[in-house]
Amino acid sequence: MNYGFAAPSLTSDQLDALTGQRPRLAADVLRLVSLSGSGHPGGSLSTLDALMVIYACAAITPENVNAPDRDRVIISHGHISPGVYATLADRGFFGIDEAYVGFRRAGSVFGGHIEKEVPGVEWNTGNLGQGLSAGAGMAIAGRVRGFSHNVFVGMGDGEQQKGQISEARRFAARFKLSNLIAFIDVNGLQIGGRTDAIMPFDLAASWRADGWNVISADGHDMKALYAAFRAAVTRQTDNPEAPTVLLLDTVMGKGVSSIEGDHKYHGQALTDAQLSAALQELGQDDNIDALRALRRERTCSRPHHIDRDRAIVLDPGKPRTYGANETTDCRSAYGNFLEDIAKANAANPAAWPVIGISCDLEGSVKMGGFRKATPERFFEAGIAEHNAAVVAGAASACGVLPYFSTFGMFGIIECYNQQRLNDQNETAPRVVVTHCGMDVGEDGPTHQCIDYVPAAHNLFGAELYVPADPNETDRILRATATRYAPIFVAMGRSKIPTVTTLDGKPAFGDDFTFEPGVWTQVRPGDDAVVFAVGPMLYRAVQASDQLREQGFGLRVVNASSLKPIDRDCILRCAREVGTLLTYEDHNVHTGLGALVAGVLGDEGVAARLRRLGVSRYGTSGAPDDLFAEQGLAPENLAQAARELAARG
Amino acid sequence: MNYGFAAPSLTSDQLDALTGQRPRLAADVLRLVSLSGSGHPGGSLSTLDALMVIYACAAITPENVNAPDRDRVIISHGHISPGVYATLADRGFFGIDEAYVGFRRAGSVFGGHIEKEVPGVEWNTGNLGQGLSAGAGMAIAGRVRGFSHNVFVGMGDGEQQKGQISEARRFAARFKLSNLIAFIDVNGLQIGGRTDAIMPFDLAASWRADGWNVISADGHDMKALYAAFRAAVTRQTDNPEAPTVLLLDTVMGKGVSSIEGDHKYHGQALTDAQLSAALQELGQDDNIDALRALRRERTCSRPHHIDRDRAIVLDPGKPRTYGANETTDCRSAYGNFLEDIAKANAANPAAWPVIGISCDLEGSVKMGGFRKATPERFFEAGIAEHNAAVVAGAASACGVLPYFSTFGMFGIIECYNQQRLNDQNETAPRVVVTHCGMDVGEDGPTHQCIDYVPAAHNLFGAELYVPADPNETDRILRATATRYAPIFVAMGRSKIPTVTTLDGKPAFGDDFTFEPGVWTQVRPGDDAVVFAVGPMLYRAVQASDQLREQGFGLRVVNASSLKPIDRDCILRCAREVGTLLTYEDHNVHTGLGALVAGVLGDEGVAARLRRLGVSRYGTSGAPDDLFAEQGLAPENLAQAARELAARG
Repeated sequence: MNYGFAAPSLTSDQLDALTGQRPRLAADVLRLVSLSGSGHPGGSLSTLDALMVIYACAAITPENVNAPDRDRVIISHGHISPGVYATLADRGFFGIDEAYVGFRRAGSVFGGHIEKEVPGVEWNTGNLGQGLSAGAGMAIAGRVRGFSHNVFVGMGDGEQQKGQISEARRFAARFKLSNLIAFIDVNGLQIGGRTDAIMPFDLAASWRADGWNVISADGHDMKALYAAFRAAVTRQTDNPEAPTVLLLDTVMGKGVSSIEGDHKYHGQALTDAQLSAALQELGQDDNIDALRALRRERTCSRPHHIDRDRAIVLDPGKPRTYGANETTDCRSAYGNFLEDIAKANAANPAAWPVIGISCDLEGSVKMGGFRKATPERFFEAGIAEHNAAVVAGAASACGVLPYFSTFGMFGIIECYNQQRLNDQNETAPRVVVTHCGMDVGEDGPTHQCIDYVPAAHNLFGAELYVPADPNETDRILRATATRYAPIFVAMGRSKIPTVTTLDGKPAFGDDFTFEPGVWTQVRPGDDAVVFAVGPMLYRAVQASDQLREQGFGLRVVNASSLKPIDRDCILRCAREVGTLLTYEDHNVHTGLGALVAGVLGDEGVAARLRRLGVSRYGTSGAPDDLFAEQGLAPENLAQAARELAARG
Repeated sequence: MNYGFAAPSLTSDQLDALTGQRPRLAADVLRLVSLSGSGHPGGSLSTLDALMVIYACAAITPENVNAPDRDRVIISHGHISPGVYATLADRGFFGIDEAYVGFRRAGSVFGGHIEKEVPGVEWNTGNLGQGLSAGAGMAIAGRVRGFSHNVFVGMGDGEQQKGQISEARRFAARFKLSNLIAFIDVNGLQIGGRTDAIMPFDLAASWRADGWNVISADGHDMKALYAAFRAAVTRQTDNPEAPTVLLLDTVMGKGVSSIEGDHKYHGQALTDAQLSAALQELGQDDNIDALRALRRERTCSRPHHIDRDRAIVLDPGKPRTYGANETTDCRSAYGNFLEDIAKANAANPAAWPVIGISCDLEGSVKMGGFRKATPERFFEAGIAEHNAAVVAGAASACGVLPYFSTFGMFGIIECYNQQRLNDQNETAPRVVVTHCGMDVGEDGPTHQCIDYVPAAHNLFGAELYVPADPNETDRILRATATRYAPIFVAMGRSKIPTVTTLDGKPAFGDDFTFEPGVWTQVRPGDDAVVFAVGPMLYRAVQASDQLREQGFGLRVVNASSLKPIDRDCILRCAREVGTLLTYEDHNVHTGLGALVAGVLGDEGVAARLRRLGVSRYGTSGAPDDLFAEQGLAPENLAQAARELAARG
């Protein structure tokens, strides 16, 4: 059934079959859009022939749809979902009736933009410009796992205006991803009109400048399409080590004369009269009334669901404990952990391969040891974070465990939209970011990442941890290594003291086990409670120890698990003590303090709450000076605790 | 004093002066970095000659530094601040002593990355890849205001890996910004090593493919630099209508033999011994001890401050009222408003010119009327939102009022980092986004913008408004038109009914005045209060009207001003009624509900609070179905209000 790319050309039977099926699939595109009353017929029809050839020939079938070494097909211009559904149904991935019933209907998997709950779809798309990066991530994962599969990425020509595509191109060329094959539906139109009027540039030259092979072909000639794809698949290209892009010359709305070449039909349904005429033109049944009845009668047979029940096989290695008198940075503890797991799992073929991805900050994020231990698993992605973030997400969807590290500003804030799509794709990248908060110091406000807490809370599947010292960094990383979710771990830049217990031992030492969603008490006290996080914890301990000498009991709780949070702990402290403070190196309006207030509000608990955090952009200077500028020195905390408690 | 670009070449006196000053400026670079113990000497020295030529010749001087038609110089690789400060001090913008004292010191303007509080600096940079977009925005603003100035943008070569630069290139070429002149410090090194090893590609070909003139020059030859800049300024280029980039061949650390060509000195201070030798090599005083003493003795003479006290001159036009029985969408009210102000201010030369910027969604965001009214003030930026967001911000810094519109997902979520830098630059773009929330419907989860509230609350200077219907859309836009701040206005996609008073008149009609930070009651009631926002307000009114018939009083409050919020109103309702609900088409964890909980927490007020909002990613379907999926139908609100009130 699947044609493959072995033969030099399609047989005449195969050609006849594809050509013969096309009008039926074109009709299904129109039917789907008319059934829902909205959708994107234009691009579905201009890309249709390429979709038919690729799904007929690539090594992805209903039978191998879960095989790790299957070919991957990513359609980055995800709005051409009618074309994708029509083609996949034709190849047997599901029945077209399911799409008729479910297309653009609440609760179904057959969304307006494609989602991977649909069999055969590999990646949710809809935010343009990210698909090529996802393809690069899957190609990397395949290489690391020793597969020889191909990864095909379809894109629109309007989409080529997105900058991230240039980042993905350069990454793919740099790592010689010759098994990454892009194809662009050059129909010359976008929503607003002619692409060359809206944003003219030399598309082929852009790809060549970034090191790709460029092949042009007629996107409506199945024979030519096969030849072009095959040239790429068999590396019969100018540079066989380079990835290849196919520029496909197409016509929007191809095959339906009433909409051909009309950009209005980028995203608009045909009138019923138009549809009727079009179905006749295509030689297909005008059965829309029957299908509408079907849609009314049936409910969606493929309900949308989230699947995160995947096991990550990995030995998280032996914990390391940093001594009570040691002063180091959390980053170094991260670097040591990475090196540990690289070594601990090197000999286990069942373990998920760990890869490291950095953006020109390998030294700062302490990935040097990992790189040295496993150079072939380290990917320096350059100053191009959007691409790197998606590469990480997509790799994790293919049984590879990526640690993506850069500064917090670049890995979370700048890539928020990419992390969001990673989350919607139910992936599990580890985003371990450093240099967060005022603690980044002299790099100044552009680099002060003080806005990552709501970013993580916006992403329904994500988790967020902010370790208090190198020991907790180690424990958090090991405890979360095998959790299947996007894991954000945020830390500062500075060397900080090991947090200790009252009797001087490491607070997160040999007998400490980290659990997501559990906050732990580091100092006792019943006059006030401070929930402190990250580099503020040792400062809170300083304040508490000072206050204790003065007879004031400031309980210190480590709130390092910022998603999930510890609701029980908050409520217990509110009821036991009633005077609560939050203390964070983060925007005071949107961070830990807001989370605590939210819990109190949900439960209707009245407590005296004082939120201490960053209340305006910082300047450029030494971290302690910046904390003082914001009223965040330990003395400020001590004073605030006393004042709040006195208010009674 | 300023040389200008009129003469065919620099005079020998001028050349001698520049060449003679260079060692002194190079020494200042080293001194600054050594004084703070950190900073970026390598790129400062490779870019230094270009900085000297540009600040000597461009029409920007201490005398015209506030003139609207001055040339603009943007340094996108903002970490070369020592080079910028040394050069600007040399040109008389401030005394170098001020930089010695303030460099990388808390509270000072002389940050590690340049900030516009420093005289002569036009744009805060530090997040790489955004400077060219800022330059394009300033060039656009100058064109609209009728100036013939030039805009120069310096960049690093590692920075060329950022995708946004390709978006800015295409935009500049599309709009023929021949007065935009970029120069790239091609020193061949970035933090991690050789640029051509980390991410090899054909830089010149990339720029040419996007329509730019490319001139190569020796970046350490003042004569060649002048000739190259002059060729661009006088349009002696292949295509005089196109913008021009200068590729400057340079050496990192140039002039200091102990660090020349060593990528380690991208961001590292010299040892004292190295510094001493370097100053000797440069023929300059080894006065670092005296400068250290100066730094200890003096405080920063230029404290950092925020300046938002700027008046926007604009006639916001006459309000339009949509009738009680009209059903339209907020987008159309926005389109009408835009057309109104274009016409109302066309004849007033004192008014700020209004420009419109869209990203291939002109029709969806209803900018067609504005475009028709003032075609030369409408800029279609293509599918390239990162660039467009910065263009808008930078234009607003130059006395032009930009309305930037696209879907919420693209204008706020995808561009969050760009909006953040816009805010740090104290700009005033209007970001009017549509298709927010579940209300976007069939476009599905990738397009459901349910995470913009914390984005706005992270930005200290920004404001956020979410109108409840077309009338309030009109009132909000007119009330905020002359406010100098980043203004976010978020609305849905659907046609919605006009919200009415109990006696059937438009609730936001002729006698309604919108005030930021003021929430208004739309329905009375003392059994429970619902704070509703955007498309949930009319649904809340439906629930309230239904409950009233059943003898239950649900007070409905319109919370359209989401930043600033109305703290007094929240507290008043909490004290008067005690049973509070929030009702929003937004992530329930991070939106209106979290803001209300925060106020209750800060004030220690116990109230029964129930937050109704989006609690998981939506699917693709009709908005009402999606609301029902999330438990957000009016009936769900009614039931929740009754239950919560019953809890007593």
